[in-house]
Amino acid sequence: MAAEKWVLMVTAQTPTNIAVIKYWGKRDETLILPVNDSISVTLDPDHLCTTTTVAVSPSFDQDRMWLNGKEISLGGGRYQNCLKEIRSRACDVEDTEKGIKIEKKDWQKLHLHIASFNNFPTAAGLASSAAGFACLVFSLAKLMNLKENQSQLSAIARQGSGSACRSLFGGFVKWILGKEGNGSDSLAVQLVDEEHWNDLVIIIAVVSSRQKETSSTTGMRESVETSLLLQHRAKEVVPKRIVQMEEAIQNHDFSSFAQLTCADSNQFHAVCLDTSPPIFYMNDTSHRIISYVERWNRSVGSPQVCSFFAALSGRCYEFCDLKHIFVLSILSASARENSYISFP
Amino acid sequence: MAAEKWVLMVTAQTPTNIAVIKYWGKRDETLILPVNDSISVTLDPDHLCTTTTVAVSPSFDQDRMWLNGKEISLGGGRYQNCLKEIRSRACDVEDTEKGIKIEKKDWQKLHLHIASFNNFPTAAGLASSAAGFACLVFSLAKLMNLKENQSQLSAIARQGSGSACRSLFGGFVKWILGKEGNGSDSLAVQLVDEEHWNDLVIIIAVVSSRQKETSSTTGMRESVETSLLLQHRAKEVVPKRIVQMEEAIQNHDFSSFAQLTCADSNQFHAVCLDTSPPIFYMNDTSHRIISYVERWNRSVGSPQVCSFFAALSGRCYEFCDLKHIFVLSILSASARENSYISFP
Repeated sequence: MAAEKWVLMVTAQTPTNIAVIKYWGKRDETLILPVNDSISVTLDPDHLCTTTTVAVSPSFDQDRMWLNGKEISLGGGRYQNCLKEIRSRACDVEDTEKGIKIEKKDWQKLHLHIASFNNFPTAAGLASSAAGFACLVFSLAKLMNLKENQSQLSAIARQGSGSACRSLFGGFVKWILGKEGNGSDSLAVQLVDEEHWNDLVIIIAVVSSRQKETSSTTGMRESVETSLLLQHRAKEVVPKRIVQMEEAIQNHDFSSFAQLTCADSNQFHAVCLDTSPPIFYMNDTSHRIISYVERWNRSVGSPQVCSFFAALSGRCYEFCDLKHIFVLSILSASARENSYISFP
Repeated sequence: MAAEKWVLMVTAQTPTNIAVIKYWGKRDETLILPVNDSISVTLDPDHLCTTTTVAVSPSFDQDRMWLNGKEISLGGGRYQNCLKEIRSRACDVEDTEKGIKIEKKDWQKLHLHIASFNNFPTAAGLASSAAGFACLVFSLAKLMNLKENQSQLSAIARQGSGSACRSLFGGFVKWILGKEGNGSDSLAVQLVDEEHWNDLVIIIAVVSSRQKETSSTTGMRESVETSLLLQHRAKEVVPKRIVQMEEAIQNHDFSSFAQLTCADSNQFHAVCLDTSPPIFYMNDTSHRIISYVERWNRSVGSPQVCSFFAALSGRCYEFCDLKHIFVLSILSASARENSYISFP
């Protein structure tokens, strides 16, 4: 190893993603294995993304992390699992210019500093943990020279936050639920890239500025334990919808895409309502928007116009906790390297 | 038959009822046959009821009906089915005092005048059609001297409005879905009478003064056609809940009763949400009340206190369209004869 003064850094940027066939319910809480496949669309990182810089130095005496400039604990199982998985796959790294050489075995002793920023509100229903864990895993994988491909990395990100596995790719992404008990085949694959359907637009309409009352983790657990509809949805409904959705995406069939997206979003909220105590992620404004979209779609025959609003309706179910209304033009870019933030 | 000037009248009063295990979805639209059993509690007719006077006279030249003082058409299939079923079962009637004698066969030619009043808003989510058709069938059965018992009459009332069959009894009532294609075994039976659980109180909290946007008839049809959860609910969930609910009622087990009532109400609304287009019968105020009730129930161990509020929560899901908040003390009285209204 080189002199003790060096710092090696990598910065990456990862977008958030929104499910069009929903992930709701885990079959394994620790490994974060879902009860059904899901499909998402990755947003443009210019609009919603996490930027993370990871650094390693022999002068660091412990792992530390800052989120939006504030130090947070890395003690939680989810962070620890991700760090452990990545360290165990770390490889030799050499920076001849800086005269740094790190051997595979050194990574077990070296400590990390991690700084992460979201360009959108955290815990506001915008999947900040998805973007966050995807970016953490991706940047650490770059830093530690992992040989794994994006899908293999997605299985690590999944252990931080389930939907994070889908943020490792752009375009439309499927999270395959997998069969293995250890979760090794529960990972994300890209269905089509961000160029495939580039006239699709997503609007985020903000219907409340309040934080959601039930976290996804708690909500999912209670749904799995108490909803008598969840398993039926997971086993009987979703598998067919996944096939139909893949077909709709491949064929640019907006009409089917919109119908499936709305139906699946509504069913996810139905399962939340069937949970005890019931979970409400929609409010009167969401209901009104959905009704407007339904009426609009019925009155206009053209998928060109439907498209805009049905996509809106799909989103509105999700994004209910921000302060401003803004428009996202979908969708591009998988995780990519970048550098514009610095450590606090 | 006697002189042509006579008029024979009967007046009856019938309460409305509220399902604690919900009826949502028909397997036969014309006969009004449900996809699952349901259980309801009949309200005190002193609070919510329909009062109907039926009259027959040789001087009437057509069947006519007034609802809340305004003439309405009897041309609809539901009224026609009820009138046909009752006329076909009519028997000889003799009023020696008035010197009136009507023979069985005369009923096919004699015309009826019907006047009906609700002491609560019509089409406001308070099951006015349940009370209305139950009262119509009951008063006509008295007028025409039918020999059928209440359960057999309930199968006729069912053809006017499904839930009407449950208003022929007081206390807790089960509507058995039945197996026969002609609907003859789809009828109501009393589980326990109004004395059985007389310390149970129902509160109706009014959360909106607007009429509901989707009628039950339309909503049910769309749920049956589009919800992928409805059949699972009807076939797998409800049958078990019916058994548990009957047990809870028999044992005055308020804790189970409250849990089942809330869970089934939520699941009914979940199926509505899973319908395309989705149906919303709850609003933000309903959500808040449910959340308060949930928190109250969790913080207090005593079923005595729970009782009051969990019953409230069950009701709030239903009663969302009235102008005032009022409190109903449950629950008594099957259909009973009375006379306090007169024809317009």
